[in-house]
Amino acid sequence: MKKLWVPLALFIPLVLSERATSAEVRYEVEFPDPPGYQTLVCDFHTHTVYSDGMVWPPVRVNEAWRQGFDATAITDHIEHHLHEDDLPIKLNRSYELAAGRAKELKMLFPMGAEITRDTPPGHFNAIFLRDIEPLDTPDLIEVFKRANEQGAFVFWNHHEWQGEEKGRWLEIHTTLYENKLLHGMEVANGGKYYPRAHQWCLDKNLTMLGNSDTHDPDLIDRTSSDHHRTATLVFVKEKSLDGLKEALRAGRAAVWYTDQLIGRQEWLEALFYGSIKATGPNARSEKSLSLEIANSSDVDMKLKRIGPTGPGDLKLPARGTTLVRINLVRPDQPLDLRYVAVNLLTAPGASLPVVLKIEEK
Amino acid sequence: MKKLWVPLALFIPLVLSERATSAEVRYEVEFPDPPGYQTLVCDFHTHTVYSDGMVWPPVRVNEAWRQGFDATAITDHIEHHLHEDDLPIKLNRSYELAAGRAKELKMLFPMGAEITRDTPPGHFNAIFLRDIEPLDTPDLIEVFKRANEQGAFVFWNHHEWQGEEKGRWLEIHTTLYENKLLHGMEVANGGKYYPRAHQWCLDKNLTMLGNSDTHDPDLIDRTSSDHHRTATLVFVKEKSLDGLKEALRAGRAAVWYTDQLIGRQEWLEALFYGSIKATGPNARSEKSLSLEIANSSDVDMKLKRIGPTGPGDLKLPARGTTLVRINLVRPDQPLDLRYVAVNLLTAPGASLPVVLKIEEK
Amino acid sequence: MKKLWVPLALFIPLVLSERATSAEVRYEVEFPDPPGYQTLVCDFHTHTVYSDGMVWPPVRVNEAWRQGFDATAITDHIEHHLHEDDLPIKLNRSYELAAGRAKELKMLFPMGAEITRDTPPGHFNAIFLRDIEPLDTPDLIEVFKRANEQGAFVFWNHHEWQGEEKGRWLEIHTTLYENKLLHGMEVANGGKYYPRAHQWCLDKNLTMLGNSDTHDPDLIDRTSSDHHRTATLVFVKEKSLDGLKEALRAGRAAVWYTDQLIGRQEWLEALFYGSIKATGPNARSEKSLSLEIANSSDVDMKLKRIGPTGPGDLKLPARGTTLVRINLVRPDQPLDLRYVAVNLLTAPGASLPVVLKIEEK
Amino acid sequence: MKKLWVPLALFIPLVLSERATSAEVRYEVEFPDPPGYQTLVCDFHTHTVYSDGMVWPPVRVNEAWRQGFDATAITDHIEHHLHEDDLPIKLNRSYELAAGRAKELKMLFPMGAEITRDTPPGHFNAIFLRDIEPLDTPDLIEVFKRANEQGAFVFWNHHEWQGEEKGRWLEIHTTLYENKLLHGMEVANGGKYYPRAHQWCLDKNLTMLGNSDTHDPDLIDRTSSDHHRTATLVFVKEKSLDGLKEALRAGRAAVWYTDQLIGRQEWLEALFYGSIKATGPNARSEKSLSLEIANSSDVDMKLKRIGPTGPGDLKLPARGTTLVRINLVRPDQPLDLRYVAVNLLTAPGASLPVVLKIEEK
Repeated sequence: MKKLWVPLALFIPLVLSERATSAEVRYEVEFPDPPGYQTLVCDFHTHTVYSDGMVWPPVRVNEAWRQGFDATAITDHIEHHLHEDDLPIKLNRSYELAAGRAKELKMLFPMGAEITRDTPPGHFNAIFLRDIEPLDTPDLIEVFKRANEQGAFVFWNHHEWQGEEKGRWLEIHTTLYENKLLHGMEVANGGKYYPRAHQWCLDKNLTMLGNSDTHDPDLIDRTSSDHHRTATLVFVKEKSLDGLKEALRAGRAAVWYTDQLIGRQEWLEALFYGSIKATGPNARSEKSLSLEIANSSDVDMKLKRIGPTGPGDLKLPARGTTLVRINLVRPDQPLDLRYVAVNLLTAPGASLPVVLKIEEK
Repeated sequence: MKKLWVPLALFIPLVLSERATSAEVRYEVEFPDPPGYQTLVCDFHTHTVYSDGMVWPPVRVNEAWRQGFDATAITDHIEHHLHEDDLPIKLNRSYELAAGRAKELKMLFPMGAEITRDTPPGHFNAIFLRDIEPLDTPDLIEVFKRANEQGAFVFWNHHEWQGEEKGRWLEIHTTLYENKLLHGMEVANGGKYYPRAHQWCLDKNLTMLGNSDTHDPDLIDRTSSDHHRTATLVFVKEKSLDGLKEALRAGRAAVWYTDQLIGRQEWLEALFYGSIKATGPNARSEKSLSLEIANSSDVDMKLKRIGPTGPGDLKLPARGTTLVRINLVRPDQPLDLRYVAVNLLTAPGASLPVVLKIEEK
Repeated sequence: MKKLWVPLALFIPLVLSERATSAEVRYEVEFPDPPGYQTLVCDFHTHTVYSDGMVWPPVRVNEAWRQGFDATAITDHIEHHLHEDDLPIKLNRSYELAAGRAKELKMLFPMGAEITRDTPPGHFNAIFLRDIEPLDTPDLIEVFKRANEQGAFVFWNHHEWQGEEKGRWLEIHTTLYENKLLHGMEVANGGKYYPRAHQWCLDKNLTMLGNSDTHDPDLIDRTSSDHHRTATLVFVKEKSLDGLKEALRAGRAAVWYTDQLIGRQEWLEALFYGSIKATGPNARSEKSLSLEIANSSDVDMKLKRIGPTGPGDLKLPARGTTLVRINLVRPDQPLDLRYVAVNLLTAPGASLPVVLKIEEK
Repeated sequence: MKKLWVPLALFIPLVLSERATSAEVRYEVEFPDPPGYQTLVCDFHTHTVYSDGMVWPPVRVNEAWRQGFDATAITDHIEHHLHEDDLPIKLNRSYELAAGRAKELKMLFPMGAEITRDTPPGHFNAIFLRDIEPLDTPDLIEVFKRANEQGAFVFWNHHEWQGEEKGRWLEIHTTLYENKLLHGMEVANGGKYYPRAHQWCLDKNLTMLGNSDTHDPDLIDRTSSDHHRTATLVFVKEKSLDGLKEALRAGRAAVWYTDQLIGRQEWLEALFYGSIKATGPNARSEKSLSLEIANSSDVDMKLKRIGPTGPGDLKLPARGTTLVRINLVRPDQPLDLRYVAVNLLTAPGASLPVVLKIEEK
């Protein structure tokens, strides 16, 4: 056999330049797909130099790709331009400047804009637009109509950002809602969670969103359970702009905020049971047995016992397999492992009850 | 003034005790399976208080499980007992004390021992033993015979640990080798790589092993590309003690040492091509195109170009997807992406040549 | 073709063996010294193979040294020996086996033992012993007397570890306390905080302790704000065993537990004001100014505003300098920055009020 | 004593918003000051949207401050404007837009620009300018003259960025050098080290610089030994723009690149001996003793023995204290600990010899 030796020159730079590729690595984020759907990780609220952000538009696409996101939108303010003394106002320009990069990275990248009014009535994002220019008009209801004529999905941003009083639901919101011009609300924005928005989404069947609202460069290199942007999880029938819009319109979304998943019970159950797999028993004795509980998602699951059996507190770390020792009062004690997933919120103050089912390994 | 205290019970559920489960979480290590085989991550050289180690035996099983290993062995010295003033010498006891834990954790856990002589001739590990006591006999060849009678797999440890001169291949090694009593060598042990052992394994068809030889507690919580024990990758037909032994006897093993994979070309090719998937082209223009190259393994792949096309240096981080921009001299330039994987060693000083094949996405 | 190989010797020097020294590096922990005292970081509750722990005794000294601690004690159970079938019971042996290592590492290492009774009355640690054997006697009060005759400092461990009911203060505790045989309590043990113990220490002038109670190897390589053992901070007049005992007897101690410092107001104020330094104003305008607030300690300070001025929430990360923008209602508004340090607990449910004083830079 | 209880409301948001301050925390970088000087950590080569960078100008100041730097410069290309279709060309504008932020953060922030010609002759940075506009003139020597008339410090950037051939020293460089118009060279730029530049700086008494040349947002949150920008260390008499310029003109600078310090022997010795402190002996026996060697800097020191005594390889991690065991051949063996600091480069291929002096503790 002829050996293929590596000649000398190959060894000299054993220290490869880290630089060329360092900003160009993506790490996938892991979430299970609910039956019949695919889970997309999305951020529909970001800013660039074209409003009051600090980065050139393609940076937003790079950041989202690097962090394992499937979709993002630039939503520069239509009415607020911090750098207007230097950078001429062009409402569609941030989209245009980033769209090629999104295509190269195969990111879903709907055109977006933030409709910006004094609070109240507040700020609203429209995504899936075709042209932002017509939205630059004084009458707010007219803006919503024009966005909807373009087929946009429109949601109310960080409703309480200026406090509880200024975040009230007013008649204008009712008008927008009843005319089906307003379709969702941010339940979380950056580092804030809005329980009233959460409850209104439940009551009014609005889609729940969680977004970063990032203005500065995003320093997160790699998404993890402890270190991620606030995100919207969307459960699509197909991975495309149309698929994304259909799912958002249908309310098939949940929110990933700090260590919490926030959403309707149906989706949180799909995320929990799609992530957690308990196998065993290993090493069953009269007094105890042990189980291996694997969590395939990127979210730690934090459980509190409500049933008769199992450890009182149970943390199932993201992407890890936890060995759980179960103490038995009687050898034939049934394994009725009932818990509450305290970090999975089905409503403000309410967490998802779960049952751990055990598969023989 | 009436004070409204927050009942403590309300806060308790949200702060889970990290303590109970913190040492009991396993994170899987990712390596591809060569066609027809399953890749097991193994460490066949560890010590406990029963020789000159610092931990009680089950700790070794816990550590290996936690770090995502599939198999480990405790290989206490037969002839050296640092704590003998305190702990009575019992050669099988470290195995006995850890075997139950291994079963509970479903770890493969062959019985092992380190045959310890002055260097030269050196130290040798025997694994898959049934009883260590009979190996405590002065004549070295007799020890090897008894180990082999028990069906053991026997390998020479860290042959140069006392320097090049004391690590020579002597007549006794020839005797052991020619009588098929010695089956492998450590090519890496802890923080040391032994190029002569590497070459001898190639020349003499000995199995290559890499082990930790850990004596202190192992602080690694979670295995990663940058932070892992020296390990032996074994390519088994079935995941069982018999399967493990069969594979080791057949030489189906490679070594994971620092950032390197060391082994025969056949296995390194299987590991490389099983880990790396290039898709594209994305965003092809006349002058350039881009590819996404995913690495599903836990080993960074470090490439150096030897063909006409592609970046000169290319680092493909573990579990990441790297976007690679290819500059084109002519629009119809063929994508002949030939590289050397500098951290995949087929022989001392020689690295694996690879070709990146591109799948349409 | 002539091949030019790179002589291996040239590469060897650049790849240093990480192995030899990796377990032998210490990183200091940063806490300020209260005026007139030196702050020592201590753990007075650990186990080895000589009771129900999993490591050989010197490991406990190595771990504490590596993590930047100044003092530790091994406190094996006098009455409970998990490995007694294998390891002969010798009560002083774990101390003897680790003392040389402690001397080499210049760690303060008082002899200790855990007095272990059914709960109630529970478990108690005695440290600064001279001989553990005499403490192996049935009558609990007699044990305490003998420990005190040796000059020991004695404290009640994890009083509620078997639940609230079993952690009650009983007549025997009163007897021990009133006869000055019991000097402190664990306010925190491993991952648990005991608010009742906290309150009793305040009411009865007992010394507050926080310890790890570690049984397994401690995986923490380097102490940080987010990743540290539960510890006792002791404020000594001199760094010696005598100095340590004097301080503990005098109650000059606080507890570092998760992200919290727990102790009497006097010590928490010394730790806070010794760590935090605000300078400025930078960039004062009519509407705002900014301050740099440095935290030199290894504890994040988490503040909540109670005064009229400054951000509502303020996190001052360990070892970092935080830039804080202060919005001004009027240009001459006084900088009355009053906060509560929510993670500095002066009593159960009560946090330390602080005022940020600003130095001109 | 009146107790100051914290009322209920303070406890509800125990989870402080991480968001407001997360981008506004600085962690200091540790380097010793050579006697008579102060060490400043600097990056004199960065880009913004005003040439071919991707961030709005103040971002560059924020990044450098956050990473513990003392000085930085924006050096946008005078002749190359990637975004000129969108952003009107104004040569002084990036400086103007960032200068206020630099003042607020107390960062030294000289005005800079990159003089950009085909390679050869290449690219050059001028810093400490007063007005960039006059430098926009075709004749290169004229540009240098005008920069020098403004009092600028001018250096040649990444001379080999287009390969060895295009990085030659030409007659024009001789002209610039002999007329004292060119004062330094980048020995390292981003992920590249230039040994020829290193040698020319030694031979021609040019100042050595290391800079990031960053175009994208810099993701580094916190500088560490393993994770830092390429930087210039400048040894100033006073911390001011004038002090900085005086030191650069006088050649008092060194380069921090990957794990290496690069510079004249004088400065590397000052950095080494100012960082390393060996104390002991601890635990001296006839056969061995141990030393504690502390490294107070943010650079790992990697040593290779050249004397008769001490471990062959010795890694002294940044900010850590390493315990070093010295084996003795005879009890009275002198402690002649001579090493080479392999990662401190005094010339291409040459490392700094050092002697470890031991202080009694």
